[in-house]
Amino acid sequence: MAEDALSHPALDKEPGEQFLQEAFQILIEEGVRKGMNVSEKVCDWKEPEELKQILDLDLRESGEPNERLLERCRDVIKYSVKTCHPRFFNQLFSGLDPHALTGCFITEMLNTSQYTYEIGPVFVLMEEVVLKKLRELIGWERGDGIFCPGGSISNMYAMNVARYHCFPDCKQKGNWAVPKLAMFTSQESHYSIQKGAAFLGIGTDNVYLVAVDEKGKMIPADLEKQINQAKSEKAFPFFVNATCGTTVLGAFDPVAEIAEVCARHRIWLHVDAAWGGSALLSQRHQHLLDGINRADSVTWNPHKMLMTGLQCSAFLLHDSSGILQRCHCAKATYLFQTDKFYDTAYDKGDQTIQCGRKVDCLKLWLMWKANGTKGLEQRVDRAFAYTRYMANEIKKREGFQLVIEPEFINLCFWYVPPSLRGQESCTDYSLRLGKVAPVIKERMMKKGSMMVGYQPQGNNVNCFRQIVTNPAVTKEDLDFFLDEIERLGKDL
Amino acid sequence: MAEDALSHPALDKEPGEQFLQEAFQILIEEGVRKGMNVSEKVCDWKEPEELKQILDLDLRESGEPNERLLERCRDVIKYSVKTCHPRFFNQLFSGLDPHALTGCFITEMLNTSQYTYEIGPVFVLMEEVVLKKLRELIGWERGDGIFCPGGSISNMYAMNVARYHCFPDCKQKGNWAVPKLAMFTSQESHYSIQKGAAFLGIGTDNVYLVAVDEKGKMIPADLEKQINQAKSEKAFPFFVNATCGTTVLGAFDPVAEIAEVCARHRIWLHVDAAWGGSALLSQRHQHLLDGINRADSVTWNPHKMLMTGLQCSAFLLHDSSGILQRCHCAKATYLFQTDKFYDTAYDKGDQTIQCGRKVDCLKLWLMWKANGTKGLEQRVDRAFAYTRYMANEIKKREGFQLVIEPEFINLCFWYVPPSLRGQESCTDYSLRLGKVAPVIKERMMKKGSMMVGYQPQGNNVNCFRQIVTNPAVTKEDLDFFLDEIERLGKDL
Repeated sequence: MAEDALSHPALDKEPGEQFLQEAFQILIEEGVRKGMNVSEKVCDWKEPEELKQILDLDLRESGEPNERLLERCRDVIKYSVKTCHPRFFNQLFSGLDPHALTGCFITEMLNTSQYTYEIGPVFVLMEEVVLKKLRELIGWERGDGIFCPGGSISNMYAMNVARYHCFPDCKQKGNWAVPKLAMFTSQESHYSIQKGAAFLGIGTDNVYLVAVDEKGKMIPADLEKQINQAKSEKAFPFFVNATCGTTVLGAFDPVAEIAEVCARHRIWLHVDAAWGGSALLSQRHQHLLDGINRADSVTWNPHKMLMTGLQCSAFLLHDSSGILQRCHCAKATYLFQTDKFYDTAYDKGDQTIQCGRKVDCLKLWLMWKANGTKGLEQRVDRAFAYTRYMANEIKKREGFQLVIEPEFINLCFWYVPPSLRGQESCTDYSLRLGKVAPVIKERMMKKGSMMVGYQPQGNNVNCFRQIVTNPAVTKEDLDFFLDEIERLGKDL
Repeated sequence: MAEDALSHPALDKEPGEQFLQEAFQILIEEGVRKGMNVSEKVCDWKEPEELKQILDLDLRESGEPNERLLERCRDVIKYSVKTCHPRFFNQLFSGLDPHALTGCFITEMLNTSQYTYEIGPVFVLMEEVVLKKLRELIGWERGDGIFCPGGSISNMYAMNVARYHCFPDCKQKGNWAVPKLAMFTSQESHYSIQKGAAFLGIGTDNVYLVAVDEKGKMIPADLEKQINQAKSEKAFPFFVNATCGTTVLGAFDPVAEIAEVCARHRIWLHVDAAWGGSALLSQRHQHLLDGINRADSVTWNPHKMLMTGLQCSAFLLHDSSGILQRCHCAKATYLFQTDKFYDTAYDKGDQTIQCGRKVDCLKLWLMWKANGTKGLEQRVDRAFAYTRYMANEIKKREGFQLVIEPEFINLCFWYVPPSLRGQESCTDYSLRLGKVAPVIKERMMKKGSMMVGYQPQGNNVNCFRQIVTNPAVTKEDLDFFLDEIERLGKDL
């Protein structure tokens, strides 16, 4: 490339800004406006091969004009699932908060990293304030924490910090220098505990699965039994994970009782409240997490119930001695210079296993500023109210059956089509019932009318799990939901 | 909450859309337009305590009106670093590509996760196409891969897959079931290799640091020596990390020769090309990575040189047997149901250690569609041209001294103020020279005129490291940069 070429910029501002403006209007129109409109489809379903044809995904030698690219933006939105649609109930997240989304946009535009004060002054300070607020809701006056790329990685941070707490040498010498470690989690807990055990070199066999009661809650007596079992096998129990809000049933482990067991055996107590943590915002429902203040660490994902947008996962620590820093630091001299002109205590980047780290705090902060703690509480209470309404409706409707009375906002139920009603004693009843949900799901996807997940659970065959967190949802949407299940499944 | 409340949505569409529109115009005006304007500051520097006062970060019980929130958006942008500014040279990323940014916005608005085809049909297909394209540039016809939240985690994936490849039992039984593992990386490699060793339970002591030559490249003979050393210490060498583009000097390890050593000892070869990978796009410069096709895995971060915005890090594998899936899967039945109505081979979510996973492919895909491979090549070539120009200028200017002749786009140099010139033989010369960069840095930050990083390197005292990737930068900005260093430092 000739030096002369450098005399002029190779990126023109005006056409770039023009493109951003036009694309933004498409985003609003196709994504936000249509996405939130119940008369539009939740998803315009296409089979993979057909969708490949439509999208023309291949990357080529030459670029394309902006008009063509705007069409592509339109198509990307059109064929994507509208998770902000009032009839999207498929995941532990849904809805679209305009303030949070604005925070996302500003984050993307500023495109910086959280590692140092120099490069992220606003966000270094902001993250601290947001994490402190979350810790206060847990009931901690002191502590530490960091935003991680998702709850699974937050849970892995907990395991690593707990291991370091027991055996600081492990950081240098590896697991070979420490006794075989044992960790404990309930049968209903999230799979990231297993994934973390594998990733951290601990091994899934060393995860002791604790039995749950009929509500899906960990049985503390069984935890104690498993701990003693591990000790008898010459393993070193170092980590107990209690779940607040299990993925399928939404069960809350009895944290206070579990904390007693942990205290007795001097084991690190982590609470995976990725899903249920947001109930702490509700005066009325925070009792579900009683005892969480006794935890050593907590995972809490505002990107789930609070609608901040993926990813926004807080890893919170009660320790305020800097264990997070000691456990993860590598002291890179090119990033964490000690001869800087400002107070380098603000350079938190060495607390993480990452280097560049996305700004995840702004969206939550801006949404909180917009709604206040009270406004967020109302949303949480509304989510509980949706579930209570639905549970009552289900009890009234023939052919609908709750798997369990919901204590949180996971509504698990079966739809029993007329052909199966009264057949409960038949040997193939369960087998046949288990085939209902997948067919209804296929039909709703192809029709695009709504989305809800299903799964087997414990010994139960496929049941639906409906989650309603989106404050744009009304009773009408909920009634539609039940009617639609019936419409789609009554011939089965 | 009364059931009646559910009859109406608790989130109004119109004011939300209005807010998004107004905030977007602020974002364009304050962030994009002022951010790219050389007569505006790169950063309006404030000390932490002062900035806390200005921003009023505390989260309160009540929410705030939209006008106040828009002011807050303006302040967040105003006091943040403008990484898109043509005089921002501080990090391995800079600039703002309007198409990539549009991809970011659409991603945030759609707010979905990559785990299943059902929930991310467009993005599951798109990620596959983008990763395939990156693999082709490496020279692989087959393979596998996934986007990870940053290069550090991509490097950790490599370690974990390599460990699983040697000892699949480790997933269940942990490191205790396998011999002490040894890994190898150069003294100049990224700190994530150390962080990964600690996190994966391998331990930093088991990372053998291989010597580098005067250009900062790994010495293959020393690698072989270290491998034999590890074997003599009864450790099992399982992983070699070669770096293509070291963080400070931008050195490329000789991958082809390292591949020979790895083949001889049957060790997994990972190439950390997080930084240098993008040189593969340039016909003229791709020779720097000769031999990368012989790697078992590669990390490549388009969010650095290619301006896609943090985070966009690809972990690429030559294996196409599904080792990524086998190594990381946990088979959660509530997400990866096997009785779905579509081909579940498209549900890739169990390949990761995450659960929810951000969509990182759209921004890169859209930017590629806009520029074509040729357009991206031109940008890479332009980055090399900037560096060549700067290296030449530095040689011409009194008081400027290159640390090393750049072979990539890291320009490392010292500014020697008049008071120090000709003093090279004084005993305190190095000590005094090392104090120059921090003072100049402080002055430029407080003035807001530009941003560039400095660090010690090996035995060298603090030198500047300038990185120019932003195609909006002109020769004028580069001349300004050198003049400004002189202006800020000539009295030292």
